[in-house]
Amino acid sequence: MKLLEDRIRRDGTVEDGDVLKVDSFLNHQMDVELFAQMGEEWARLYAGEGVSKILTIEASGIGIACIAAQAFQAPVVFAKKGRSKNLAGDVYTTQVESFTHGRVYDIMVSKRFLLPTDRVLILDDFLANGAALQGLIRLVEQAGATLVGAGVAVEKAFQPGGALIRSMGVRVESLARVKSMSPEGGVQFC
Amino acid sequence: MKLLEDRIRRDGTVEDGDVLKVDSFLNHQMDVELFAQMGEEWARLYAGEGVSKILTIEASGIGIACIAAQAFQAPVVFAKKGRSKNLAGDVYTTQVESFTHGRVYDIMVSKRFLLPTDRVLILDDFLANGAALQGLIRLVEQAGATLVGAGVAVEKAFQPGGALIRSMGVRVESLARVKSMSPEGGVQFC
Repeated sequence: MKLLEDRIRRDGTVEDGDVLKVDSFLNHQMDVELFAQMGEEWARLYAGEGVSKILTIEASGIGIACIAAQAFQAPVVFAKKGRSKNLAGDVYTTQVESFTHGRVYDIMVSKRFLLPTDRVLILDDFLANGAALQGLIRLVEQAGATLVGAGVAVEKAFQPGGALIRSMGVRVESLARVKSMSPEGGVQFC
Repeated sequence: MKLLEDRIRRDGTVEDGDVLKVDSFLNHQMDVELFAQMGEEWARLYAGEGVSKILTIEASGIGIACIAAQAFQAPVVFAKKGRSKNLAGDVYTTQVESFTHGRVYDIMVSKRFLLPTDRVLILDDFLANGAALQGLIRLVEQAGATLVGAGVAVEKAFQPGGALIRSMGVRVESLARVKSMSPEGGVQFC
């Protein structure tokens, strides 16, 4: 999606350690008009798939998922990290290893909000190693719901997550695929 | 706002310990069409105030804030909890005491996204003791920005937060104000 690639070129910065900083418009300050156009693009890509639910994970996926959900006229469910006393009881849960934070955490979704009849589209801001996305896919499987596919804003295509998820037979639509990046040379897209 | 009150009556449940569970439409599964109407209501209430930025806090405030921000044509910034390596350096930060989780945590916003020229509207899902809202207000003050006011989806008016924040001279617009509630008697609004 040229609009997102152009925005990353203009406002994104590359830092040491393969960090692509897009916090001025994507995951700290959030440009909701950009999100609406991203949502329209996913709605075009997944037209006719009968998406009944958008699934994402806290925290930075929530804004993108909510705005995009308007284009699908579907509710959003976000997976929570760690334990919460408001969620005790009937949840689907799995573990996710965070490479960014160097730890393993639990994610969970109430069983009431992922149903066997649901056709689920997973949306998130980043795809790198694919750990979070794989965790969300396991929650969909636990629910016996149908996974329509995944939509990702920025895929780091030089990391293994995208290839791994696609090799599982899951459709992944990334709006910007980063082929390579460096602090000196900036960002190149696929 | 009658629409939200009716929804709480229909789909909310009251649990022991003053827990109002609205996770089927507000803070786990999220009804984005309801959020859009809530956003329109805040936009009507704060019309002419020149809101340039919406400030919220992760995680459950983000969806409401992003959808509502479309009615203001303003970007959203969300305060992060705890430390993140993507945020090292120039941040405004303060401490918040969570009564729900029984602990104190740091919240922070990058200095790049709260400016002295900003006119800030704070949005969040719940107002009970007011600890999170007071923390967000301190971040706005640290930035030297102008606080236009706050918008809250559900205020527990029998808890002290709302009166406390209003006594500071801050305008608070709650779309549903719960006067009292109990597992047996349900929810009564102000």
